[in-house]
Amino acid sequence: MKVEGNVVPGFKASAVAAGLKKDKGLDLALIFSENEAVAAGVFTTNRVKAAPVILSHEHVQDGKVRAIIANSGNANACTGKEGLDNARLTADSVASELGIRPDEVVVASTGVIGAHLNMEMITHAIPDLVEKLSPEGIPQAAEAIMTTDSFPKISRSEGVAGGKTYGILGIAKGAGMIMPDMATMLCFILSDIGMDAEDLRRALRWSVDTTFNRISVDGDTSTNDMVLVMANGMAGNAQLSSADYEGFQQGLTDVMSDLATMIVRDGEGATKVVNITVKGAATDLDAITAARTIANSSLVKTAFYGQDPNWGRIMAALGRSGILMREEDVNIWIGDIKIVEGGLGRGIDKEMKAAEIMRKKEFNVTIDLRQGSYEDRMTTCDLTHDYITINADYRT
Amino acid sequence: MKVEGNVVPGFKASAVAAGLKKDKGLDLALIFSENEAVAAGVFTTNRVKAAPVILSHEHVQDGKVRAIIANSGNANACTGKEGLDNARLTADSVASELGIRPDEVVVASTGVIGAHLNMEMITHAIPDLVEKLSPEGIPQAAEAIMTTDSFPKISRSEGVAGGKTYGILGIAKGAGMIMPDMATMLCFILSDIGMDAEDLRRALRWSVDTTFNRISVDGDTSTNDMVLVMANGMAGNAQLSSADYEGFQQGLTDVMSDLATMIVRDGEGATKVVNITVKGAATDLDAITAARTIANSSLVKTAFYGQDPNWGRIMAALGRSGILMREEDVNIWIGDIKIVEGGLGRGIDKEMKAAEIMRKKEFNVTIDLRQGSYEDRMTTCDLTHDYITINADYRT
Repeated sequence: MKVEGNVVPGFKASAVAAGLKKDKGLDLALIFSENEAVAAGVFTTNRVKAAPVILSHEHVQDGKVRAIIANSGNANACTGKEGLDNARLTADSVASELGIRPDEVVVASTGVIGAHLNMEMITHAIPDLVEKLSPEGIPQAAEAIMTTDSFPKISRSEGVAGGKTYGILGIAKGAGMIMPDMATMLCFILSDIGMDAEDLRRALRWSVDTTFNRISVDGDTSTNDMVLVMANGMAGNAQLSSADYEGFQQGLTDVMSDLATMIVRDGEGATKVVNITVKGAATDLDAITAARTIANSSLVKTAFYGQDPNWGRIMAALGRSGILMREEDVNIWIGDIKIVEGGLGRGIDKEMKAAEIMRKKEFNVTIDLRQGSYEDRMTTCDLTHDYITINADYRT
Repeated sequence: MKVEGNVVPGFKASAVAAGLKKDKGLDLALIFSENEAVAAGVFTTNRVKAAPVILSHEHVQDGKVRAIIANSGNANACTGKEGLDNARLTADSVASELGIRPDEVVVASTGVIGAHLNMEMITHAIPDLVEKLSPEGIPQAAEAIMTTDSFPKISRSEGVAGGKTYGILGIAKGAGMIMPDMATMLCFILSDIGMDAEDLRRALRWSVDTTFNRISVDGDTSTNDMVLVMANGMAGNAQLSSADYEGFQQGLTDVMSDLATMIVRDGEGATKVVNITVKGAATDLDAITAARTIANSSLVKTAFYGQDPNWGRIMAALGRSGILMREEDVNIWIGDIKIVEGGLGRGIDKEMKAAEIMRKKEFNVTIDLRQGSYEDRMTTCDLTHDYITINADYRT
């Protein structure tokens, strides 16, 4: 069955303005699967985990989820026992209204850390949310989970398994990658493919590792990060062949990659998306360590903002990253312009051409360490005046 | 002998405008010890080391140094063989003009990475520098090593060893703690105490570890960092008793601590100095790791700028630092206001009092992890609009 627009067979969604956000916009979203769905989730690695993360991790263990309720405006993090009670009460209210079990409900929150949820607003809004559930409601749900995001993030792909067409539809919110007190990245992905929970978990881990784990806005890690994928089997496909599985994994990765890039593009204050590739590393760990160090360097990121091909900052970041490197082996490209060869700058002409490339909204930086054959990449954004403004004034 | 003002017996200094800096200000400094002096140095841990770092490390090995020549405007980093040749040529020219050996000369550079020194300007200026040497020249040398620093950094202390009074005079430049392409922190310390090179090395390492290694402006590490201390024995003291040695180490630490705080206060764009103490850590590594993670978090630093007691960002930084912690054990103070107890906020009244304290130019943040008995601290600054402006536009 062909999947049109922002719809996945068997899934409904809705959103309301419960009053949790200062601006009185949509702030509470519900996603519901009409039949049993298998589910898999990955959650923040931060030792400080928000209450909804603790609860949802518990609820997704058995691989079965029917509903997701997500609020913006309040992260319900650092809220102790009362926070966990509130997350449970939210799940209970949703379950009771939908006629499902509480452990089939995933709860997600994003917003300010350390404040308690206004449960009256939430429980009061739930009947309304349930009533509004509609197959066309997903874009509204995407809007309701936004905090400092400047646009809703939706991506979809389509695949065929056992002759049946299925859709994969994802929504996500940023906007600081992993902004602790906007507490932060949420991503929900819905598919009508039929597959078992174990395969879904495996596909999710792989896709997250090559997409969301390869982006950075500011190097901070949130207490609330969560990626959840649900598959309800409505496509009617038979058991997956290994080619079908790979097709699904690719589709899932495409959707996540698309959402991940949107998150960087919408990174707080960001004006540019920069793809950093490190090749020729001695080990796979060296490759990702080098890429991460460059992607998180405040100096490199302000140079991106200034459109300055200041390769000395990249060299210095490599030098402090702890990887195996020799200055005199390093080559650096901005776009297709090689600006450093054997650790030395190639002159002002090359730098001027590189500066031209850096005027674009998206460009690539490639580093060849020439120590081995490992390669990895990170997508990052620039560090700008607006990042400071957004984060100095967020709560006030 | 009493040491007055910015003078240390037996040391002379001078500075000239050689033309290396765009603003045509003082950019070349010379410090000279009239007699043999013992010396010790610590150098950047960055794998990408500037040419003068490589050369000076070599020259300080035997513990004997007579002269320091330092330029601003150009870091002579990532300059390959030509850079090293230029550093050697600088040392040779200074040695020849002063009538000493080249390996008695330490060379230091700070400024843009990846450009070659204009050696004509430097060799042309050296006779002039030597002619201008004067016991009163040290403040001018402090001025000549500035890059984006907004004020010269000088500190002094005095001690008594074996009945003889000696002075310790230090100069330093920042201004990003360890800004790779301003490449960056230089500190020279002169004393007329008599001591052997081994003791001096030991005292230096200890003092650096408790001062310069406990500050952060932006978490980047420079290719040019260097701290050099020289002691010429002019005070005429006998062999140091262990009390004398400890007195000297304390004096050295006082001078470095003073200079380190000046560097943070003058951190690029900084408006506030924040002292972060982590106590109750399970290990000494946990204590410094937690303090460093908080001191380097862009989110925490923008909250300092915004005078926002946003403790959720501190909790989230602790949570991602990898240390042993339990959210429900954490207490946090801003100044003397306890804003978090057992992982939970203590309410808006406490936060408003904390915000009041954050209006000051310098304040303390204390975190008690309650996991053990280890404690450490970092001094950091806020992350501001001006940091972005300075670093986006530095070369252009």
